[in-house]
Amino acid sequence: MKDDILLTPGPTPLPPQVREALGRQIIHHRTSQYRALFKRVVQGLQGIFQTTTPVFCLTSSGTGAMEAAVVNLLSPGDEAIVVLGGKFAERWQQLCKAYGITVVPVPVAYGDAADPQQVAQALRAHPKAKAVFATLCETSTGVVHDLRGLAAITREGPAVLVVDAISGLLADACKTDEWGVDVVVTGSQKGLMLPPGLAFISVSDRAWTLVEQAKTPRFYTDLRLYKKSMTDDDTPFTSAVSLVIALEEALKRVQQDGLSHVLERCALMAQATRAGVSAMGLPLFAKRPSNGVTAVTVPTGVDGKQLIKVMYDTSRVMVAGGQGEMAGKIFRFAHMGYIGASDILAGLTALESALRACGGAPAGDGVAAAKAVFSQAPEAVAQKV
Amino acid sequence: MKDDILLTPGPTPLPPQVREALGRQIIHHRTSQYRALFKRVVQGLQGIFQTTTPVFCLTSSGTGAMEAAVVNLLSPGDEAIVVLGGKFAERWQQLCKAYGITVVPVPVAYGDAADPQQVAQALRAHPKAKAVFATLCETSTGVVHDLRGLAAITREGPAVLVVDAISGLLADACKTDEWGVDVVVTGSQKGLMLPPGLAFISVSDRAWTLVEQAKTPRFYTDLRLYKKSMTDDDTPFTSAVSLVIALEEALKRVQQDGLSHVLERCALMAQATRAGVSAMGLPLFAKRPSNGVTAVTVPTGVDGKQLIKVMYDTSRVMVAGGQGEMAGKIFRFAHMGYIGASDILAGLTALESALRACGGAPAGDGVAAAKAVFSQAPEAVAQKV
Repeated sequence: MKDDILLTPGPTPLPPQVREALGRQIIHHRTSQYRALFKRVVQGLQGIFQTTTPVFCLTSSGTGAMEAAVVNLLSPGDEAIVVLGGKFAERWQQLCKAYGITVVPVPVAYGDAADPQQVAQALRAHPKAKAVFATLCETSTGVVHDLRGLAAITREGPAVLVVDAISGLLADACKTDEWGVDVVVTGSQKGLMLPPGLAFISVSDRAWTLVEQAKTPRFYTDLRLYKKSMTDDDTPFTSAVSLVIALEEALKRVQQDGLSHVLERCALMAQATRAGVSAMGLPLFAKRPSNGVTAVTVPTGVDGKQLIKVMYDTSRVMVAGGQGEMAGKIFRFAHMGYIGASDILAGLTALESALRACGGAPAGDGVAAAKAVFSQAPEAVAQKV
Repeated sequence: MKDDILLTPGPTPLPPQVREALGRQIIHHRTSQYRALFKRVVQGLQGIFQTTTPVFCLTSSGTGAMEAAVVNLLSPGDEAIVVLGGKFAERWQQLCKAYGITVVPVPVAYGDAADPQQVAQALRAHPKAKAVFATLCETSTGVVHDLRGLAAITREGPAVLVVDAISGLLADACKTDEWGVDVVVTGSQKGLMLPPGLAFISVSDRAWTLVEQAKTPRFYTDLRLYKKSMTDDDTPFTSAVSLVIALEEALKRVQQDGLSHVLERCALMAQATRAGVSAMGLPLFAKRPSNGVTAVTVPTGVDGKQLIKVMYDTSRVMVAGGQGEMAGKIFRFAHMGYIGASDILAGLTALESALRACGGAPAGDGVAAAKAVFSQAPEAVAQKV
């Protein structure tokens, strides 16, 4: 049976080298062999995070590393600014509330990107806020926020900028050190082309000062323990060894390809997808669309849940529906990670026929529009395996 | 190159079905296919936990689930009894202290098992203690505690019994419901024959009352969220999908073999190992030895660290050294999970020759002694693959 064509914003398809590594016999983690591998992996992560600060590796889903950011930076009663605009931004809010942090919300409508001036205003109104929590790509709406702009504003004062780049990293630009992003969080199952199970967090020197001061109780996610272990190229608690070994293979792919080429290819996949759905007459939901995932508004008269079911049932192409209040109103067509032009074309083909089957009328030829994009950039389409 | 022979108390070797499952292409987790699989997996876990209460599945190392127990059951200022006796028992203590729980330690010397009467005394002296934290197999000393006895004592009062069965489950008996163990924690990389990355926790009805009352802040490990998601055969945060799929294969092996047969085989491996090291004249460190891991005292005049290095360098057999203050004084020869008679014999052969190389003099033929044990139970040796 042919594999599904997974165009979901995580998990994303696994390249062959990753699958081979996952299937290897296990090795022990308290060995010089594993420590050397772990060291290489951390250096590779620093490369894709574009930072020279430590990147810590947690055995958890992305939310575990988001929690690590909150509990390591803040103390109960602290104020934090949370940039909203989607389900995952709201997770920052939930996390802060769970740990007794006073949240200053920066409201952003679903589909909109935050205006950095809103954050500037919030910082002026709340000069004691210790952190700004934001999102690179809001997976639930397909919006990429202006991280560079948010960082520039935040760096004017003492607050640190903490970014959920779980679905953003390796899809949208994230120049951690250059832009001055203090804390970046990501997960393994998006641009990194791995199964879920690992999460990563980088911490700038100025954010580390907060880690030393924070009073929120913590243990499994206590980054002080991770920093101490890292001096021995180790983790305080048993790593997900197989995933770390596979991570090295994924990082090798990115390194061989080159980070800029990976980002260009992802941008091209996004451009072709946007051209395709636009040609079919389907509106893009995100005002500032991410290169990792394209959110598409379901046209009136079409049942959005049925649409994605038909795509899967007839073509084995899986896109994601809307979450929460967006269910049925949008669908999300992802193109991050191990996705090539053929996947995009298969996805658009499936969409076109499912749209017809669900009573929609494609305005034009989406597949042709995507092909036209690809034909203009044959170099960027190439995927080294 | 031949694989290492891993006789370490986690990670343990992966059976072929598990490796095959790990190497499969990823599937999406928000699908009916995955929910059905997740449901089967939870039922399988209930079988090996020997409980009808829910078993929650966390993406974390075992420590993550230990933390889940502490933060979900207790509030800052609560009293808890912690049965000591090794590095992992001390982790309960560290966790409790990190979350502001007042610890009543029950001291147990390394190598000794706790006397349930000590716990009875502690409970009498501290009638407000809400929980007793204990360990099934103390991985650092090879001791299996009298869980049945500890449960019988604890069940006389209102405190709940919480047990770290991370290296104990599927090696030593753990009759959760029958004995009245309220909370059992385990990890994936021990008797379950998986890579590290998943942790599991069962919660009795009476312990759930505490979960509803506990005031310790929590989010990623908040079992209320896990319980809610479980009504949809789902998890609140993305599961480590590949590991869950491989878990189903591991559970199938246990089910086909039969839990009692798995435990018998593990007991036989332990018996042969103990017979082997004893025949060589090496003292067992644990007064009440676990069936999962045999801790052996390094004889005077032999460098314990060198001994395990020589075993690995000459035979690719990896046993674990002592941890913390036990480093160099003991080594730990594990036999839980996917370990057969040939592994035990290879381990003892390597030990015998490394002992000689390190200036020790084996008193007798350890391999012959182990073989004699195996020859008496050919049925139990069989490992269905």
